Amino acid sequence: VLVTVIGLDIGGANTKAAFLRSKDECVEELRTAIEYFPVWKNPKKLAPTLSVLREKVSGKAKLDGVGLTMTAELSDAYQTKREGVDHILACAAQAFADAPVFVLDVDASLVSMDAARSEPLRVAAANWAATGWLVAQLIKTCVIVDVGSTSTSIIPVIDGRVSVAGKTDLEKLTVGELVYTGGLRTNVAAIVSSVPLKDGVARVSSELFVQSGDVHLVLGNITEAEYTTETADGRGKTKREAMARLARVVCADIEMLTEDEIVQIAKHIYNKQVDQVIEGLNQVYSRVKSLTTAKIPVVVTGLGKDFLAKIAAQRLRVERIIDLSKLMPTDVVMASPAAGVALMAASKLEGRIVKWTR
Amino acid sequence: VLVTVIGLDIGGANTKAAFLRSKDECVEELRTAIEYFPVWKNPKKLAPTLSVLREKVSGKAKLDGVGLTMTAELSDAYQTKREGVDHILACAAQAFADAPVFVLDVDASLVSMDAARSEPLRVAAANWAATGWLVAQLIKTCVIVDVGSTSTSIIPVIDGRVSVAGKTDLEKLTVGELVYTGGLRTNVAAIVSSVPLKDGVARVSSELFVQSGDVHLVLGNITEAEYTTETADGRGKTKREAMARLARVVCADIEMLTEDEIVQIAKHIYNKQVDQVIEGLNQVYSRVKSLTTAKIPVVVTGLGKDFLAKIAAQRLRVERIIDLSKLMPTDVVMASPAAGVALMAASKLEGRIVKWTR
Repeated sequence: VLVTVIGLDIGGANTKAAFLRSKDECVEELRTAIEYFPVWKNPKKLAPTLSVLREKVSGKAKLDGVGLTMTAELSDAYQTKREGVDHILACAAQAFADAPVFVLDVDASLVSMDAARSEPLRVAAANWAATGWLVAQLIKTCVIVDVGSTSTSIIPVIDGRVSVAGKTDLEKLTVGELVYTGGLRTNVAAIVSSVPLKDGVARVSSELFVQSGDVHLVLGNITEAEYTTETADGRGKTKREAMARLARVVCADIEMLTEDEIVQIAKHIYNKQVDQVIEGLNQVYSRVKSLTTAKIPVVVTGLGKDFLAKIAAQRLRVERIIDLSKLMPTDVVMASPAAGVALMAASKLEGRIVKWTR
Repeated sequence: VLVTVIGLDIGGANTKAAFLRSKDECVEELRTAIEYFPVWKNPKKLAPTLSVLREKVSGKAKLDGVGLTMTAELSDAYQTKREGVDHILACAAQAFADAPVFVLDVDASLVSMDAARSEPLRVAAANWAATGWLVAQLIKTCVIVDVGSTSTSIIPVIDGRVSVAGKTDLEKLTVGELVYTGGLRTNVAAIVSSVPLKDGVARVSSELFVQSGDVHLVLGNITEAEYTTETADGRGKTKREAMARLARVVCADIEMLTEDEIVQIAKHIYNKQVDQVIEGLNQVYSRVKSLTTAKIPVVVTGLGKDFLAKIAAQRLRVERIIDLSKLMPTDVVMASPAAGVALMAASKLEGRIVKWTR
């Protein structure tokens, strides 16, 4: 049997799609696409953006179904999550009018559009469940650390099942499974309140002068091409421009600070970000003691997997750190919720779990 | 002798003007105007904004001189302070072509446009010096706590002289004389990293979802009319809309949290802001021990004088807290750097200090 589906992960800043074709319960083709689309700037453009993304990832292919997960409902373009979920579902229905759309819920099940509409909190911000489900097919027990552009999800998987303590974002922020720090878009003023400088300590400005992407660009953790969001000042993504933004966080400029001083500031912020991830991980470990034994791997994924997730796990002396991109192509890893929800949709249509094979 | 001047305080978000007419070294007339103008959105509009403000505050009055101070050069519309100072001076020269413009420096002196242009760091972010100078005419020894929309300046005055340890913003951030917390525009994610909620503690989102103005509106510290900046989501300034923004900081919405829970969050953030001001004050006190004796007053000013500056001083058990608006009209207090630099300009033109009389 041939099944053709698209998985969609509609985020606040990035929307990701995974095109998946399976044959006899095995993945034959899987490719992803990402569109930078800050939904808060113009929610009306969401439906056309989904159509563009569909075309980009699947051309004119006929679809048997669509799997959908979202976090964009949190955007302040919407007054409530209910309003956001409603609008996002309506846009998906418009862009995929020719195929059934299934929506991921926080119990890692796919539900109908109607069910999703009637219980918006059940499907809001469930994309971690898709990543968890995807990884659980490959590694039965682990802790996933998924560092995205803006936030980090920590997802415990036990005996092939996603075993989280928090289902909504609010619950996750409380139990350590969601940490609002990421590889590109995090406001540095939300990471540190002061930085070391010239034998002293300087408070930081609370403006949005510089983002984590500038820190990682200056430190060589990402390339200009990997810096895929807008900059805080609308200027370019050269190291020099990123340094100018970093200098501004202490109300200075590149004429007042040396390169070395700016690098020291960047290192301090980087360190604090690692600490934020560690704090989340520690909170998860203290709840589920069985995950702390040396045998349980940490699976790292997302654009910050190498420079944030992996470093945090290393500092906690985790013995087995598995890079998800060793098990799957990098583009799939960078869009793991979209790939996961595609695989879930294909499995639902097949009536059996479609297997990931290299 | 009659002297007519304007004092200008060109900030990143608000530009303030004070019109002052003095006769025989005494202030006869003093009135102020404020224009909300976020310079980073369109620096080209600065010159016309200054002309509008001039008209607003002084009509067609002929001017003998202009006193100018600025903080807008820090805006990321400019790559360096040098570029910012240059542009701001050029705009002032354009809007006030018919009068000599004097620029305040960090030693609380007025210098020529040429001197300012050649040493931009000498005149960048010097507006605290105008406030300090103004207060020093009335109270010889004190600590001024000026809480604006975005940041707080702590200005020691000893024997009638502004006696700061930091001259640039960078130095002030290091010594506690500048604390980047204010009554309206501060991103809540830069104030707290977590908030108490439902017997637990929730991390906060690092997005710009909610500002300090929402906190103070919800708690009744400010009115809707006093909330003079844009909101984070572009929505209105009712208590309900502010509550919706506050709920979003823990990725929730007003359907998920009760009003009481949101108020508890607001109280926690408020408390942390007071702590930030206290920390700055303590750092200043620990440097200048002579200011900690019971006789030395704290002078509170700026839009956050009552709910931030005063509360911080009370918690430190300061015995004499002087509200600057008891000594001067409220509109002058809300634009104290503009009023201060106007008084300085008038004094310079007179060749003697022009006195403030009620």
